[in-house]
Amino acid sequence: MLSKNQIKLIKSLKNKKQRHLNKMFIVEGKKSVSEFINSKYDLHKLFSINISDFNLTNTVQISESELSKISFLTNPKDHLAIFTIPIEKPVNENKLLVGLESINDPGNLGTIIRTCEWFGINDIICSVDSVDCYNPKVVQSAMGSLSRINITYLDLSNFLKSKSIIKYGTFIKGESIFENKIIVDKGILVFGNEANGISDNLRSILDVELTIPRFNSENYPESLNLSNSVGIILSEFSRKFNEKKNL
Amino acid sequence: MLSKNQIKLIKSLKNKKQRHLNKMFIVEGKKSVSEFINSKYDLHKLFSINISDFNLTNTVQISESELSKISFLTNPKDHLAIFTIPIEKPVNENKLLVGLESINDPGNLGTIIRTCEWFGINDIICSVDSVDCYNPKVVQSAMGSLSRINITYLDLSNFLKSKSIIKYGTFIKGESIFENKIIVDKGILVFGNEANGISDNLRSILDVELTIPRFNSENYPESLNLSNSVGIILSEFSRKFNEKKNL
Repeated sequence: MLSKNQIKLIKSLKNKKQRHLNKMFIVEGKKSVSEFINSKYDLHKLFSINISDFNLTNTVQISESELSKISFLTNPKDHLAIFTIPIEKPVNENKLLVGLESINDPGNLGTIIRTCEWFGINDIICSVDSVDCYNPKVVQSAMGSLSRINITYLDLSNFLKSKSIIKYGTFIKGESIFENKIIVDKGILVFGNEANGISDNLRSILDVELTIPRFNSENYPESLNLSNSVGIILSEFSRKFNEKKNL
Repeated sequence: MLSKNQIKLIKSLKNKKQRHLNKMFIVEGKKSVSEFINSKYDLHKLFSINISDFNLTNTVQISESELSKISFLTNPKDHLAIFTIPIEKPVNENKLLVGLESINDPGNLGTIIRTCEWFGINDIICSVDSVDCYNPKVVQSAMGSLSRINITYLDLSNFLKSKSIIKYGTFIKGESIFENKIIVDKGILVFGNEANGISDNLRSILDVELTIPRFNSENYPESLNLSNSVGIILSEFSRKFNEKKNL
């Protein structure tokens, strides 16, 4: 049974300010909830139409119609959990990092988190104006990977200036990722906003300007989807790094 | 000024059956509308808050509030156009094809269309139960690329059986795309449904089972986002093909 205060709290967590004031966010669906339970994240409360799935003490049994009242999904699932937003961990600069400037679309950020985990990235660094990683749509599209990837919001320009690691940026024009021969196991790969790319300010701090070559003779499309670009570049970096390791 | 019948027609085009009965679909936003006008597609009618942008005869000047009534977008833009659904063109089997089985998510299909164009794919073949490429969300996320890519809906299993081209499928486990040395300029790359992958029926027809290797020591995430997988594999095929061409 849901209390009015619980409904009010959950609904408020759709809002970024409320999430960070309460230090709480929502995860939905058995699979994702289970991955967060098995991670560094602390469960605050679980609302479940099937409490035997987890058998935890801080669980509230709810009905399907109660779930549909509180769910952020078009098709509510079985479980809705409130987790505590943890304190940010320090960035591990001895591995390859992904930096995101002013990323806007929650679905993109979620997919990028999932893809980063696939390619062994542990840290994603976002400029402070980027979409919040605890936004329900980010959590949803990251499909559990958010529970294992460290995401840090900071002044990206200051961070880049203060670090003596190699800084790659991705642009519509630049050196082909296939022709760039530098093979690194540390450094940062920076991606810009969906519509505007990397800002001039950030661009001036970067060491290498990379591009994914277009394999057609037209000038279309103008760009690739942001999360697709991240996937393609991480894949190419991983391929080269692995080939070097096996030499 | 919008007529009641026009509003009714436009709203009906959110529905797949109505789109195909009327042989019409909606494109929104100056950039996309302009790309469709400059393509093989026939403009049926343009509804515009700024008719001087295009200066076409079959344009209806509308107000911003009228646009917000008919737009499928959360943030309506400037133009909404009705285009005619063309007759499907024959598939060009002498180039690399992309095949999609039971693809479900309109955003994924749109992104795949855009990414396919980037990598020079001309034909995408979808199983008949795949999401309709004239779905407004597909048109939106394809960002104009739909106007230049040929999409054919057919019985994918029969198509594959009847063609003597090399058939690649993409799976969670298979031969690494980086280790597979076959370099082709024709053939078909098949991708399965977002949740279930390629069906057993289709799998039995394929020649090569490929995978994108996971570059971490965990079993997470279980999979990559579908459009990201398409991007990574097309990128790797293009890289190899280009290296061979330059030898």
